[in-house]
Amino acid sequence: MMNNFQFQTAGQIVAELHSVHKLADYMEKFARVRRVLILSQPAMQRAGYLDNITTSLQAKDISCDVITSIAPEPTDAQLTAVFEDIRKEKYDVIIAIGGGSVLDAAKIIAVMFTNELSIRQMLGTNLVTKPGLPLILIPTTSGTGSEVTPNAIVTLPDEQLKVAVVSPYLYPDLVILDAQLTVGLPAAITAATGMDAFTHALESFISNKANVMSNTYAKESMRLISNSIAEVYHNGSNIKAREQMLIGSMYGGMALSCSGTAAVHALAYPLGGMFHITHGVANAMLLPHVTEFNRDAIEPQLMEVAKIIGLSSNVANTNQAATAVIDQIVQWTKELHVPQNLADYGVQQQHIDQLASAAAKVTRLLNNNPKEVTLEDMKHIYRKILK
Amino acid sequence: MMNNFQFQTAGQIVAELHSVHKLADYMEKFARVRRVLILSQPAMQRAGYLDNITTSLQAKDISCDVITSIAPEPTDAQLTAVFEDIRKEKYDVIIAIGGGSVLDAAKIIAVMFTNELSIRQMLGTNLVTKPGLPLILIPTTSGTGSEVTPNAIVTLPDEQLKVAVVSPYLYPDLVILDAQLTVGLPAAITAATGMDAFTHALESFISNKANVMSNTYAKESMRLISNSIAEVYHNGSNIKAREQMLIGSMYGGMALSCSGTAAVHALAYPLGGMFHITHGVANAMLLPHVTEFNRDAIEPQLMEVAKIIGLSSNVANTNQAATAVIDQIVQWTKELHVPQNLADYGVQQQHIDQLASAAAKVTRLLNNNPKEVTLEDMKHIYRKILK
Repeated sequence: MMNNFQFQTAGQIVAELHSVHKLADYMEKFARVRRVLILSQPAMQRAGYLDNITTSLQAKDISCDVITSIAPEPTDAQLTAVFEDIRKEKYDVIIAIGGGSVLDAAKIIAVMFTNELSIRQMLGTNLVTKPGLPLILIPTTSGTGSEVTPNAIVTLPDEQLKVAVVSPYLYPDLVILDAQLTVGLPAAITAATGMDAFTHALESFISNKANVMSNTYAKESMRLISNSIAEVYHNGSNIKAREQMLIGSMYGGMALSCSGTAAVHALAYPLGGMFHITHGVANAMLLPHVTEFNRDAIEPQLMEVAKIIGLSSNVANTNQAATAVIDQIVQWTKELHVPQNLADYGVQQQHIDQLASAAAKVTRLLNNNPKEVTLEDMKHIYRKILK
Repeated sequence: MMNNFQFQTAGQIVAELHSVHKLADYMEKFARVRRVLILSQPAMQRAGYLDNITTSLQAKDISCDVITSIAPEPTDAQLTAVFEDIRKEKYDVIIAIGGGSVLDAAKIIAVMFTNELSIRQMLGTNLVTKPGLPLILIPTTSGTGSEVTPNAIVTLPDEQLKVAVVSPYLYPDLVILDAQLTVGLPAAITAATGMDAFTHALESFISNKANVMSNTYAKESMRLISNSIAEVYHNGSNIKAREQMLIGSMYGGMALSCSGTAAVHALAYPLGGMFHITHGVANAMLLPHVTEFNRDAIEPQLMEVAKIIGLSSNVANTNQAATAVIDQIVQWTKELHVPQNLADYGVQQQHIDQLASAAAKVTRLLNNNPKEVTLEDMKHIYRKILK
């Protein structure tokens, strides 16, 4: 664990129940807003949130264009098509209200308006050259933590991989955390996104780049999520637990921004790119097995994790602590009914080589892993979840 | 403790030993820098840091004006005089390298360049109307945490009070935490500023506005400072301990930005304004006595503090925990030789009424205190430190 770090986050973060209804007031933060673009998804339209927001904005003479057609885990072509339809329009602010795919889409579209670059040209780290349009991100899952990261994920169908645009220009100006928006989230999505958030925290905590700042966020994230993930799955209307998940998810995003995730994410990307397994499910499937693989390199950290997630009374030494943490993760995936078998998504033994080769390309994340992961190691891990 | 919060911080934070020598590289973050203003203090000049920095900036064709004459805990007239001397100059960036007084001065001067307002007109909350010049803050004490707060403190000699400019426009664009700069800090300043940082964390933690985010920072701040404050006092060249103090101090600033300090700070300001007792010393003197006063309202929080600062093995209940925490604070002030008697600064019994009346005006902070503090309570607390 290092004392060195670099940290950056959203311009302002507001956490308050029902704060989404104050969105029009927050426009005063920005210079002269006359027209906004709202990216969202049909569930928010159906729940009446979008009508409420556009009405309150129009009451302040702000006109709104609303797009709810962003595909889940969109491809670069889909995002480019969305942008081409609106590129001639003049927006003062872009507002995204949705899950990770919607937030990431908004982050990319905001910089496409100001950079003369295609998405392919921006893929990678620090290739965006100018700040984007002012951006407000309002997550409706807990979650990707995308609202506080410099990353936006794009699916590349031809390479069957998911890749990232990484740029400090992707941090939003304002984040609104309103847990009420997450109350209607279906249990299966609550489970998968919640395990995704926990994965961000745990991977940041054991990352080679873990540091005093990322660990602060990672620990608090694991504490909040472990306290509330089963509760929100079984009782989605428990608003206190929903708040804890939303804040825990944000901390996961802050942790990974400051230290980076590792092998779980590297192995998850091809599962999304090739088999459309959603990011949260892929991470949840892989997390116990990658943690088992890393185990001998991270036992002291797993001892701390055991304490943070409330398992310390059962463990006498680091070896027992590691077992207890891995068992708890497995226990959660079972209790939350997160899918456990790649075969359910059409993966066959013959695909393992290709998956491993694709994962091996994600060196940005594999370099953060506390143990070297060979191609054989990756195949071995994939085989464990192909039954 | 609330789940609601609003959080904002510096644009970017870099923590790395010797990173101050990379200052010229960080200029690339800003558009076209040709001329900078550096505010610092003689100790940094003597240690060679300023020559090193100006040489590296000049190598990038950036010219530097250097001012090292900011008085400790400056008055509004002193700051105005500094500004009047340079108001016609065109700077692209302002860089402050110093303790809290230098950082606060830079925060105010940066917005004076862009707002047509006197300091008196800016005193209060949200009265600054425009962003200031781009600002880089480099703390050399651990400390005020000023590098991550929206506050700047000014002494008003006619009112014998210290008051604050509070504005989101005071957050800097970049913070550089280089613990090497704090190694030469004299033991007495190490002690007083360290106790100041601990006070920020503890007061934020017991504040009425304490929330899930401010508590994250407050707890981590108390953990880091309690681990290292005695060590840096006795062994100032222990760089790991200096790093912990610097990061702990920053967390203290983040905590107070997110929840606000309380009665200790309210009672400290008149001691600074009327008797020139430095802010850290005033806070350290008051902290055990105000904590004792608040005690019955905050025992559960003090139980948590006892755990965080490593006292939990000695305590069986919240009452014992509160005693242990207060004893530890007293123990630190003795071990670190922080002054304990107002009489040493010329305070006499006849001044107590005036001090209490002045403190009672600091309602912004008194409202955060977990117990109401009457004028009589304040007199009683002051009398405890006047021997």
